[in-house]
Amino acid sequence: MVVGLVETAVPAAKSTFSSAVKKPTSLSSDPIINVARGDPTIYEPYWKKMGDRCKVVIAGDEFMSYFCNAMNLCWFLLPELDNAIRTLHRVVGNAMVDDDRFIVVGNGSTQLFHALLYALSSPDLPEPINVVAAAPFYSSYPEETKFLRSELYEWAGDANCFDKDKPYIEVVTSPNNPDGSIRGTVVNREGGKAIHDLAYYWPQYAPITSKADHDAMLFTFSKTTGHAGTRIGWAIVKDKVIAAKMVKFIEVSSIGVSREAQLRAAKILGVIADDCRNPDLKGENFFEYGRRLMSERWGKLREVGMKSNGVFSLPKYPRDYCKFTGEYTDSNPAFAWLKSKEGLNFENLLRDESKIITRGGPSFGVDPTYTRVSMLSRDVEFELLLKRLAAIKGTVNGN
Amino acid sequence: MVVGLVETAVPAAKSTFSSAVKKPTSLSSDPIINVARGDPTIYEPYWKKMGDRCKVVIAGDEFMSYFCNAMNLCWFLLPELDNAIRTLHRVVGNAMVDDDRFIVVGNGSTQLFHALLYALSSPDLPEPINVVAAAPFYSSYPEETKFLRSELYEWAGDANCFDKDKPYIEVVTSPNNPDGSIRGTVVNREGGKAIHDLAYYWPQYAPITSKADHDAMLFTFSKTTGHAGTRIGWAIVKDKVIAAKMVKFIEVSSIGVSREAQLRAAKILGVIADDCRNPDLKGENFFEYGRRLMSERWGKLREVGMKSNGVFSLPKYPRDYCKFTGEYTDSNPAFAWLKSKEGLNFENLLRDESKIITRGGPSFGVDPTYTRVSMLSRDVEFELLLKRLAAIKGTVNGN
Repeated sequence: MVVGLVETAVPAAKSTFSSAVKKPTSLSSDPIINVARGDPTIYEPYWKKMGDRCKVVIAGDEFMSYFCNAMNLCWFLLPELDNAIRTLHRVVGNAMVDDDRFIVVGNGSTQLFHALLYALSSPDLPEPINVVAAAPFYSSYPEETKFLRSELYEWAGDANCFDKDKPYIEVVTSPNNPDGSIRGTVVNREGGKAIHDLAYYWPQYAPITSKADHDAMLFTFSKTTGHAGTRIGWAIVKDKVIAAKMVKFIEVSSIGVSREAQLRAAKILGVIADDCRNPDLKGENFFEYGRRLMSERWGKLREVGMKSNGVFSLPKYPRDYCKFTGEYTDSNPAFAWLKSKEGLNFENLLRDESKIITRGGPSFGVDPTYTRVSMLSRDVEFELLLKRLAAIKGTVNGN
Repeated sequence: MVVGLVETAVPAAKSTFSSAVKKPTSLSSDPIINVARGDPTIYEPYWKKMGDRCKVVIAGDEFMSYFCNAMNLCWFLLPELDNAIRTLHRVVGNAMVDDDRFIVVGNGSTQLFHALLYALSSPDLPEPINVVAAAPFYSSYPEETKFLRSELYEWAGDANCFDKDKPYIEVVTSPNNPDGSIRGTVVNREGGKAIHDLAYYWPQYAPITSKADHDAMLFTFSKTTGHAGTRIGWAIVKDKVIAAKMVKFIEVSSIGVSREAQLRAAKILGVIADDCRNPDLKGENFFEYGRRLMSERWGKLREVGMKSNGVFSLPKYPRDYCKFTGEYTDSNPAFAWLKSKEGLNFENLLRDESKIITRGGPSFGVDPTYTRVSMLSRDVEFELLLKRLAAIKGTVNGN
């Protein structure tokens, strides 16, 4: 166990994929707990239990061609995946997927975010289009927008402070990463464009209150089911021209998306949808299982928080009626957004005092009293996290 | 058959993935033959024959984590694939893969080309670095370099004409796409950087004369074995800093590469390598099979060319000693580079007179008397192509 935990910490320390690049200064031999990233290994036991039902078998001569479905606008989208995505959204009721909407598949929703920046910008504009998101915002948006120094778009920071009378794209994540809040656009100016990142709008994380119905919505297999090693995301897009530009982006970037990964996503999403529609299911459907697990974890974390003597606090979420479960449910976000006492750098404190690697407020556009903790780690890691959080004194102020 | 051929033509017409966007003007009901793209379906019968040996099976709980190998610089590279790539290159002898070289996997070599542009450029330079390639060059390089309007790099055209005293990246494709020639750098100025695209440096296409030993070499599963639907490419990189920047690019672009596709590539490359090392193999190893097939097709095409009364001609390639086969062999490139009589626009002529969709010279930086034809289509399509080429008169001059 311990070795696993230590290993998990390594790539995050090497890579900006995590915000934690500085190693703990403590010399204790306790293993590092890395909850800086949302690696969704929490769901492994469920999929293990599913056995052969989710198995895929691929013969040597399958999927030779670049083309999946030559008649479809998204010519590299496997028809089975298109079908599974639409069916699952209909069953869960979390997004509009009428037949006139276009599904674009990507190498994770990350590639689709890039594709949308490209599709929503224009080489005809005199300057790059401004890209904004209300703080705290997903820490990767600024880097993804900036790293190639495109003249098509540029990062313009917190949407709450955006006052330029210029074209813009607002990125709305709901439920939000890092803080789990339910969000809408905040700029709301005529001609503004929006990307709705709905990665966490699934019943295990939040009540499903209505079918989302935005111009461009992003979802990802990794947060839906926990299959992060399968790089599959999808966009649901109203406008054909935007969808076609996204397809073009993915063509020029990677000539499509691996068929093997699409086949597996189709299989697993299909099994989930079948189970949700099956009232005679022995055991729980995936979302019920996930919701129970997340709810238990949040209960435990809140208890630790209450006992922390004000060292840190957690956001509160309103209960709401979930149309999927048919009852009032709580939000149980994939990340906990911890706020420490004023004056602390909480990321540094957790790192130095408790060997817990988290991602601090500044990565999300806010102050360092906040830090983000993944709630999706394996059980053993989560239990250790609770134990360490319960023991913190808040006396070290690493800066 | 006919339906299949017509369908194949559709996405190419919709998408700039093909250079052919204008449909044939002829109203005949003959099916369109689309050989504008190098869709490598030629090898399907071989993989069908291999049956279960190349089958992969993936359980529902495999590959949940973002991380493949936390201790490796390329943390999303499946160790089995790393191993299969190195083994195959050692067996074939076409590239140096000493243990101190880094393997970076990408969503096709296309993503790795982008990753290398990023890795070889620098935000500290006062202007974008110039990207050049000797004409005729792969038609996608200009678009891939230009489409995001990056301030890091810019397309600067034909390397033969590059006379600026400025930093540059030269892209060298060898054997070259489109014309099959064996190439080296042409600019050769101090401080110049190079990307060696060796997608076609495999025994079925060219004699293997030595182990390629460049700073950054690109290979792709699609051209090695014909599995184009599996978006797997790899780079062999000498410099750790460059490799790390490439990994960073792939992290920010798509958070890695689907594990399912990597597993399948590892399996199939492993089987090929095993067969090449097995002198008791019943039947042919993959490269012998591919070479025989390509050689037969080239023989037939050359015959049609000779009988065409000068309507078109084909390049000639020197025989060379192939260390892999242990004999003198011919080049049998994946594309035929057809040159027509002066004054013709050969792409248009083939489209309008023969309903053959090809990709014309201007896409590759040269004049329209040239056009490129894929040699990797299915048998039925290739035979139809020969028949139509044998019948052309060269009387229509579509412009």
